[in-house]
Amino acid sequence: MAPPIAARAQQMPASPIRKLMPLADEAKRRGMRVIHLNIGQPDLPTPAAMRRCLDDAPEILAYTPSGGTPEYLGTLQRYYAGLGIPLDDREIIATTGGSEALLFALIAVGDVGADALVVEPFYTNYSAFATMAGVRLVPLTSRGEDGFHLPARAAWDAARTPATRMVILCNPNNPTGTVYTREELDMVAGFCRDHQLFLISDEVYRELAYDGRTAVSALSLTGIDDLTVVVDSLSKRYSACGIRLGSLITRNGEVHEACLRMAQGRLSAPGLAQLAALGAEALDPGYFAANTATYQRRRDVLFAGLQTIPGVFLRKPEGAFYFVLRLPVSDSEDFCRFLLEDFALEGQTVMLAPAPGFYATPGLGKDEVRIAYVLNEDDLAEAVKVLRAGLTAYREAGRA
Amino acid sequence: MAPPIAARAQQMPASPIRKLMPLADEAKRRGMRVIHLNIGQPDLPTPAAMRRCLDDAPEILAYTPSGGTPEYLGTLQRYYAGLGIPLDDREIIATTGGSEALLFALIAVGDVGADALVVEPFYTNYSAFATMAGVRLVPLTSRGEDGFHLPARAAWDAARTPATRMVILCNPNNPTGTVYTREELDMVAGFCRDHQLFLISDEVYRELAYDGRTAVSALSLTGIDDLTVVVDSLSKRYSACGIRLGSLITRNGEVHEACLRMAQGRLSAPGLAQLAALGAEALDPGYFAANTATYQRRRDVLFAGLQTIPGVFLRKPEGAFYFVLRLPVSDSEDFCRFLLEDFALEGQTVMLAPAPGFYATPGLGKDEVRIAYVLNEDDLAEAVKVLRAGLTAYREAGRA
Repeated sequence: MAPPIAARAQQMPASPIRKLMPLADEAKRRGMRVIHLNIGQPDLPTPAAMRRCLDDAPEILAYTPSGGTPEYLGTLQRYYAGLGIPLDDREIIATTGGSEALLFALIAVGDVGADALVVEPFYTNYSAFATMAGVRLVPLTSRGEDGFHLPARAAWDAARTPATRMVILCNPNNPTGTVYTREELDMVAGFCRDHQLFLISDEVYRELAYDGRTAVSALSLTGIDDLTVVVDSLSKRYSACGIRLGSLITRNGEVHEACLRMAQGRLSAPGLAQLAALGAEALDPGYFAANTATYQRRRDVLFAGLQTIPGVFLRKPEGAFYFVLRLPVSDSEDFCRFLLEDFALEGQTVMLAPAPGFYATPGLGKDEVRIAYVLNEDDLAEAVKVLRAGLTAYREAGRA
Repeated sequence: MAPPIAARAQQMPASPIRKLMPLADEAKRRGMRVIHLNIGQPDLPTPAAMRRCLDDAPEILAYTPSGGTPEYLGTLQRYYAGLGIPLDDREIIATTGGSEALLFALIAVGDVGADALVVEPFYTNYSAFATMAGVRLVPLTSRGEDGFHLPARAAWDAARTPATRMVILCNPNNPTGTVYTREELDMVAGFCRDHQLFLISDEVYRELAYDGRTAVSALSLTGIDDLTVVVDSLSKRYSACGIRLGSLITRNGEVHEACLRMAQGRLSAPGLAQLAALGAEALDPGYFAANTATYQRRRDVLFAGLQTIPGVFLRKPEGAFYFVLRLPVSDSEDFCRFLLEDFALEGQTVMLAPAPGFYATPGLGKDEVRIAYVLNEDDLAEAVKVLRAGLTAYREAGRA
């Protein structure tokens, strides 16, 4: 009989993106082909120029400076300068993916018991980091009918509590694929300024904005320099999720110092990843545009296909490579299980992520799923066919 | 005027190992040679067999399983089996260095406000992780006269508080170089059993035990399977600190599950590191013995040399590549600054880590420094000469 583990450890949420994975594995064992629309692992290759940098690995794979190697920080400075955002190297910390940047930011700006306003549906792992940090996520609901754009200012003022210390925003948004307009972001900046709240802005999908849109960085908003902490990552930008390399950017010297001390505690960010990152500067100037065009075409295939399925609702996604889709079902998790356990179309099925795990408000998202489009267009067209047939079969089975 | 950052962020400790680095940089700018005895970055090469594994990097550097790649976990299982410790792959989680394993363990077994008993002097970064986790470190003092071996059971019982939930032990010990005997570890196991406390055992220096000693893993102690969480790392074992790869090992299913959920939150441990780790199995069977012999010779050089300096005290270190040295000074930080700012012997000086940062009890360690020996024997002999002259000069300057 062991003693109980910590209460916060018992509260650690299971990932809604991964929890149905055993059912998918079981389906594959039965010989099924599972088309994965549930997880955001890009299928595009990591640029060869980055992988080639590993040839220069030194003889001793030693600790690197806790804040990041000067070379990696330099690539970030030049990348941001290209966006019109000049950064001092004392404003950037190399992190182990965007994940670590988010955890550092939460701990730096909020004490245990602090509230963080977050627009739901939101990237589900925020719950894990908030639980680790002892910060409570207070949701502000965005709606599919509005293309999941931001609620009006009045809703923000109403949602604020005495314990609110920060806003967490993800732009372009995972899971909704929404790209916030400058007007929306100015509204959030005004809200943060008025109430002196920190703004943690997760911008890891920055390049993926479609139809000529531009994702506006919180670093370019007015009057919140001291309040802003940007979470960034190379994962999606360079299709390099596995190297675990990101950055935390802030012009608030105290926040920087606190995060640097946390960085010193864990010694350094992954060194091989910081080496590979140097290859990004050798990429063709058209690299981002080509990637964005690829994902935009995929979005178009899915959007066109899904719209023809009766009872399905979505507005045209604007960025990232996700969206939240409303389905004619009352329990999306049950439907996702059905697809994996009880359904096949020509030996195939699809795996989706049930949306309730992306909401903090109980009961929301029960008729929604998150879809990631990191597959080629043929597979996506196939997935639409399978999903259409799956919805019909689900209804005929009397489970809708 | 930005709002205050979190109180816990303000409390994040600065690293005593790194805080004097600007003075060392300044000394180097003046043309001085600084012999670094302050930091535990091994100078031995990372095995070529591990670096060569990077040639097999896949085209897409994708997320790896949150708990670790099956291949990496397999190497750990075989490594532990070789120590006589059979492990199920459900008992191991790949982590971003030992650092992340320690943070996960603290959060999993202690809530905010929990106390952790730790033997001081202790690895200074425990303070950073404890601050992040909201856990208080309660010190049990070990003494140089005892070779920094463990205090007797009565001291453990006296130090326990109502909030004590865990013991953190580091064996072989950083910073003292002490290797605990099986009897000492059985005593700690009994203490944990009697009071149902978790035992977080940091064993990253396992192979570095000298004079025929063996570091006993907490995983081989009796009756505390459900209480034990081992923190392990490839950093020192394979001179691969920069890749950031370690593991968390526990036979407690609930702790495993909670840590796995934290691991899922941050998606995966560094993938390139897990690839490099596979090369460890190609190493010569004599690899560890040769490394251990190298460090043992270095210890011998330092121990012999330091003993001849008047007023210096140490017992013979038993493992790891650190020890805590008592000096005839009343303020070791001031002495360390003096060495970097006001002293030179033939254009050289040494950098040491003042010991107070390794203690939680205020005032302790003021006549001690931590020394790391990750330099060749010639440099170490030179360092002894420099330190001897530095102590003389410090006394003559009237600052001792």
